[in-house]
Amino acid sequence: MLGRKDVLHLKWNRQAIDVVEAQNRIQSHVRLQKSEDLALLRAFGRRLAEDMAAPHDMPHFVRSGMDGFAVRSEDLRGAGARRPALLEVVQTISCGTVPTLPIRSGQAARIMTGAPLPDGADTVVMFEMTEDRELGGRPFVAVKKEVERGKNVSLIGEEIKRSEPLFGIGTRINAGEVSLLAAFGHERVRVFAKPRVAVFTTGSELLDIGSPLQPGKIRNSNFYLLSSLVQEAGGEVVRSAVLSDRIEQAKRAIDQAIGEVDLIITSGGVSVGDYDVMADFFRDMPGTLLFNKVAMRPGSVTTVGVSQNKLLFGLSGNPGACFVGFELFVRPALLAMQGKKDPYPPKFRAHLHGDFTKGNVFTRFVRGRSFIREGRAFVEPVGREQSSVSVSIKDSDCLILIPPGRRGKQDGELVEALKLDVIR
Amino acid sequence: MLGRKDVLHLKWNRQAIDVVEAQNRIQSHVRLQKSEDLALLRAFGRRLAEDMAAPHDMPHFVRSGMDGFAVRSEDLRGAGARRPALLEVVQTISCGTVPTLPIRSGQAARIMTGAPLPDGADTVVMFEMTEDRELGGRPFVAVKKEVERGKNVSLIGEEIKRSEPLFGIGTRINAGEVSLLAAFGHERVRVFAKPRVAVFTTGSELLDIGSPLQPGKIRNSNFYLLSSLVQEAGGEVVRSAVLSDRIEQAKRAIDQAIGEVDLIITSGGVSVGDYDVMADFFRDMPGTLLFNKVAMRPGSVTTVGVSQNKLLFGLSGNPGACFVGFELFVRPALLAMQGKKDPYPPKFRAHLHGDFTKGNVFTRFVRGRSFIREGRAFVEPVGREQSSVSVSIKDSDCLILIPPGRRGKQDGELVEALKLDVIR
Repeated sequence: MLGRKDVLHLKWNRQAIDVVEAQNRIQSHVRLQKSEDLALLRAFGRRLAEDMAAPHDMPHFVRSGMDGFAVRSEDLRGAGARRPALLEVVQTISCGTVPTLPIRSGQAARIMTGAPLPDGADTVVMFEMTEDRELGGRPFVAVKKEVERGKNVSLIGEEIKRSEPLFGIGTRINAGEVSLLAAFGHERVRVFAKPRVAVFTTGSELLDIGSPLQPGKIRNSNFYLLSSLVQEAGGEVVRSAVLSDRIEQAKRAIDQAIGEVDLIITSGGVSVGDYDVMADFFRDMPGTLLFNKVAMRPGSVTTVGVSQNKLLFGLSGNPGACFVGFELFVRPALLAMQGKKDPYPPKFRAHLHGDFTKGNVFTRFVRGRSFIREGRAFVEPVGREQSSVSVSIKDSDCLILIPPGRRGKQDGELVEALKLDVIR
Repeated sequence: MLGRKDVLHLKWNRQAIDVVEAQNRIQSHVRLQKSEDLALLRAFGRRLAEDMAAPHDMPHFVRSGMDGFAVRSEDLRGAGARRPALLEVVQTISCGTVPTLPIRSGQAARIMTGAPLPDGADTVVMFEMTEDRELGGRPFVAVKKEVERGKNVSLIGEEIKRSEPLFGIGTRINAGEVSLLAAFGHERVRVFAKPRVAVFTTGSELLDIGSPLQPGKIRNSNFYLLSSLVQEAGGEVVRSAVLSDRIEQAKRAIDQAIGEVDLIITSGGVSVGDYDVMADFFRDMPGTLLFNKVAMRPGSVTTVGVSQNKLLFGLSGNPGACFVGFELFVRPALLAMQGKKDPYPPKFRAHLHGDFTKGNVFTRFVRGRSFIREGRAFVEPVGREQSSVSVSIKDSDCLILIPPGRRGKQDGELVEALKLDVIR
């Protein structure tokens, strides 16, 4: 059995790895979710489980893009205000109908936006450029201008050609995707099943959120934070519990959950404290420890392992560090499980607004806000930068990277940042 | 009764108003939704129906920010590698417990991150800077450095003070908000009820999405587009129908819906075609017509009225124009009904990537993509710019404003753009 000194030695001699290396180690253990067929509107917000191509041309018929007259453009040659082209109106074509007659030289068809062009016609002249006439009791239209051939007409396949790739696997089904899927007749779509997630929060200091405050105790906000983040990332929390600081309880809870869920998240207990139950758990976990220290602040003690082919994330208990750990490691894993090709938060370079002078041995991921002013992109830290300051989570839409070093970064310097998805 | 010429005169002599004027007219008819109490996690994604302030200080006790030893900083004065301060360890304070003893001069308490500081202590020295000792069978700790008073300690109210404003009415409850609400003990929150919306799509050319293609007909994708957009904006579609081109049917459908829903959207039939049923409907609608022409492309025929205090939006039937009309007018109305303070898509100025040479008499809202490169913000049009090109909806995250004029905008010029909320 290990003495306390030995255990402390293990705790403190963790090998810190780079964030990217940590992400890669996780990625190599990601397994795609099973897929399921859903009715189109129920699939809204989910991710496609297959590549999809256009099953037919769009439009699938030659279509008018305006309310006006379908004509043969050659009939307008030489037309002008003094010498309008006079065309006999031989039919009216409304949307959803099929033209009954071809258009011969000297003829036109009254046509509505979206209606199919009659044979012979190649151009549509909008109503506003025409005048109604009557000659010998028959309806005519006068056009006082030449009109370019093909004007106001959409050709077959002009928007999308048959077999053209539409969506890649892992694409999120947003409103634009729903619209296209509907236009192509997909009543149902094959999407990845939501990752089923267990969330365990650890610590004897945690109160239920309905409880009144007690000295030395805090409410279990991390469970709510993580549940919301999991939901945002397309997963669902199907199991949860508050674990005390007893290792046996943690082992039992994780052991029971692991067969039922696709991924496990814990928060708290990964540090070097005497009661850090998750650090103990990961030290001799059944399975593979991927890492237990990352060269980053906050959340350097973030720990990830794999057991029974399931990823186990040991996030820090500090809300800010828990959040950063989720965004860098858990969200990408959840997105990759749902097929997303590049599941990491998109990186961009922007000007730092204000100084950030605090140095660090590790890269710091500072919760920040981005904005654009006169074509220049800026990021600025939000709130006070302590890993426990939970108020800044709600105000951030990016993580600003401050590289290791003593001096930090100065106002106006270009810094890297990671974009977070936030809707206000 | 009006003859065809009179009707056409009315159709074509619509008075175009500015987008901002149109938005203002709508805004003056927005009424806040009723509110409802929801369990915290069910309120995720909804909007707060009240301003909220912190009910207590956070933290509510003096808290250790590290695993280490709680000390009196004055006891470390003069400490160094050669002459460490030796302090007797009189207790261990884990998270969630309350210290049993005060710390007197010459004493220290072993303390965990998040645990309450004992009386007398003012500073925490992290484990890594200490060495365990034993003197006379009693546990001591050696500290080889002076430590700044207050180091690794969070004071009461340091993150948030009691009564400090937390959230304004209309705030979207994202993960950060959920976390704070949980920390402050809000098991339930008061949010605005989801706006109940009716969506009517018009046109005899519309096929059910499960139907095979027919000549001249298209599938009803706009219903799916609008349903998704409504859901994104926090509403729910509770009524829908496809309307033919018969005015009586449209009147009956809208009349039946208006008592049951908070807002009505139609798509199609607002233009100058012979069968444009919504244009006819709005021409003599019961209630007030707010406008039936907007100085914009696409979607200049977008029409909005108010009847029985409900907003009725007549959007264009072209998917692209329908989308732009939704983003400029319907989404802001839905967000304002849920209390959002500035409900319009945020405006920013960025460099145009590539030329956009097509001029227009009206401001053009071009579906675009934004990106940041080396601190510069760019926008570029997506797809081919025809109002009917539905493929560009899915690829856009902004609308680029091309002001009226002949020459459009050149590569690199600063242009205004409206940010759209998209999660990929």
